[in-house]
Amino acid sequence: MQEVTLKQIAEILQISVTTVSKALKDYKDVSPKTKAAVRNLAAKLNYKPNPTALSLRNRETKIIGLIIPEVVHHFFASIIHGVVLEAENHGYLVITLISNDSYELEKQQVALLLDKRVDGILVSLAGSTVHTHHISQIIKKEVPLVMFDKISDEIRCSQVIIDDWQAAFEATEKLILSGCRKIIHLKGPDGPKTSLDRFEGYKDALKKHRIPFHPSYVYTSKNVSIEDGYKLTEQALKDHPDIDAVFCITDLVAAGVHKYCKNHQIKMPEQISIIGFSNWLISELMSPSLSTVDQPGYEMGIRAVNLLIQEIGSKKSDEKSTLQKIVLPTKVLMRETTR
Amino acid sequence: MQEVTLKQIAEILQISVTTVSKALKDYKDVSPKTKAAVRNLAAKLNYKPNPTALSLRNRETKIIGLIIPEVVHHFFASIIHGVVLEAENHGYLVITLISNDSYELEKQQVALLLDKRVDGILVSLAGSTVHTHHISQIIKKEVPLVMFDKISDEIRCSQVIIDDWQAAFEATEKLILSGCRKIIHLKGPDGPKTSLDRFEGYKDALKKHRIPFHPSYVYTSKNVSIEDGYKLTEQALKDHPDIDAVFCITDLVAAGVHKYCKNHQIKMPEQISIIGFSNWLISELMSPSLSTVDQPGYEMGIRAVNLLIQEIGSKKSDEKSTLQKIVLPTKVLMRETTR
Repeated sequence: MQEVTLKQIAEILQISVTTVSKALKDYKDVSPKTKAAVRNLAAKLNYKPNPTALSLRNRETKIIGLIIPEVVHHFFASIIHGVVLEAENHGYLVITLISNDSYELEKQQVALLLDKRVDGILVSLAGSTVHTHHISQIIKKEVPLVMFDKISDEIRCSQVIIDDWQAAFEATEKLILSGCRKIIHLKGPDGPKTSLDRFEGYKDALKKHRIPFHPSYVYTSKNVSIEDGYKLTEQALKDHPDIDAVFCITDLVAAGVHKYCKNHQIKMPEQISIIGFSNWLISELMSPSLSTVDQPGYEMGIRAVNLLIQEIGSKKSDEKSTLQKIVLPTKVLMRETTR
Repeated sequence: MQEVTLKQIAEILQISVTTVSKALKDYKDVSPKTKAAVRNLAAKLNYKPNPTALSLRNRETKIIGLIIPEVVHHFFASIIHGVVLEAENHGYLVITLISNDSYELEKQQVALLLDKRVDGILVSLAGSTVHTHHISQIIKKEVPLVMFDKISDEIRCSQVIIDDWQAAFEATEKLILSGCRKIIHLKGPDGPKTSLDRFEGYKDALKKHRIPFHPSYVYTSKNVSIEDGYKLTEQALKDHPDIDAVFCITDLVAAGVHKYCKNHQIKMPEQISIIGFSNWLISELMSPSLSTVDQPGYEMGIRAVNLLIQEIGSKKSDEKSTLQKIVLPTKVLMRETTR
């Protein structure tokens, strides 16, 4: 006996194959009347779903992909930790790829993961990523996607982030409230939204407290490194010998400022206050210990995986998933480099 | 026409199927005479390898598994970095699993990776792993295996390690040569070989320089943490107020010693010298900067992947792989906590 197909049911009822398929899956956008008609006929004809199609549809690798800019980095290592452990709790394994902040590598890595038919993908963008066509491809191929930390507003997907603007605003405000007025900002490269948002937060805190914003008080750290922090402090002090504070894009850059001050007998926080960003382990162990913004990496990893697994679940049951945006709270930790 | 099978060739020649198979693959343990007989007959009968068997045999996932005790850890994060980048250079993706130093988790993770049919596995043992039956299973299933850093001598496989004994010997000797005589050792838990080897290196350096070994000078840091370093220093100074140096199992523990000395106005290195292990980023940034043993994590990752890919290649071409042991050089970095 030949198997009855969806197409035959569709032809008999004079409706589309899609409608038949949706009716059998109880989609909401098919009327109860049509659903009843399809089911009755399917039962009469002893219709059975094609097992090959079913297995293709339900094929799961139970592997998710994670693309991250760096790994030897306290914040990102904490994220990996959260992602891998939480994924495993839910029966998923994680392929980790490190883009090394390279747009080209990131593009290749997205292609690799799609090719491996992973069940879902987590991405934090490389610093040098400007176009996001490769990320759109993930959505186009209907692979569940969650972005975290370094996201792009051009991509419609679930996100787990911190409010970088808010965090930078609070950090700068703490410097102002402690009496600082000539506050340098060592910002990151212009690509990543995190970097731009922190810069805006810095400017808006100045504005709120009616401190004029001087573009010459802002220096860009291209490599976001200790060396950059060191050299830019040297430059900033040459340009503006009377500065009283430095707000840095990350703790690594702040460690460079710290080192410069130490080597040149500049007292922290009496002469120069410093606030970093991310709360690396190093910041607590430096002397004086570094004030910084605590960024919850481990929790970000856990939340991102949970969102992704929800979306994988929605896809399996053919439900439309609701895009979610989780903004995790940060906290300015006032240690010894601030008054 | 029915396909000719290995079995038929074996029956005609009155030899085993294995011998036929090996002869066709040019194994060294089959005599040239037998090889010639098998090949002649196979050619006459127009024998073709079964394509299904072939594809099963050659089935590659192009995924390798990595089981590592920790990730928010400078040394292990550097290893992951090396492993992931080098694997990708060779067309392999890496599933990273973090055992959190748990024997139970590690066992489950080995089973997971075997189940996923990864092409090979890289393992660094959890601190609490004592039995290695689960690791033997990898070899039994003929899945290429390379162990690195935290290995077990019970497992016959390729290894990438440092000489922990040598490194600890040199570090302790540096302390002795700088004039220290009452040298405390804050050791790690007894499970991992790295920990035991470092302890032996410490003892042997004392022996070489005819300094009596006092078991009461040795304290065990169970959690290998900053807190442990802090508390054990407090205890050690209570037990032996005249100690002049501390050699620590890792930089984290050394950071605790450092913190205790700082909080209690104990001058480093004048009153107490400190040497850590691993060269974490923190050690360079502490003040005074921490003397330590540099351990090449990134390179270890690269070498481990290369060994594994060699073994995967050998397996594919049915060659026996030669087990290799790579011992990477370490270096004692004398910074400011040593005289």
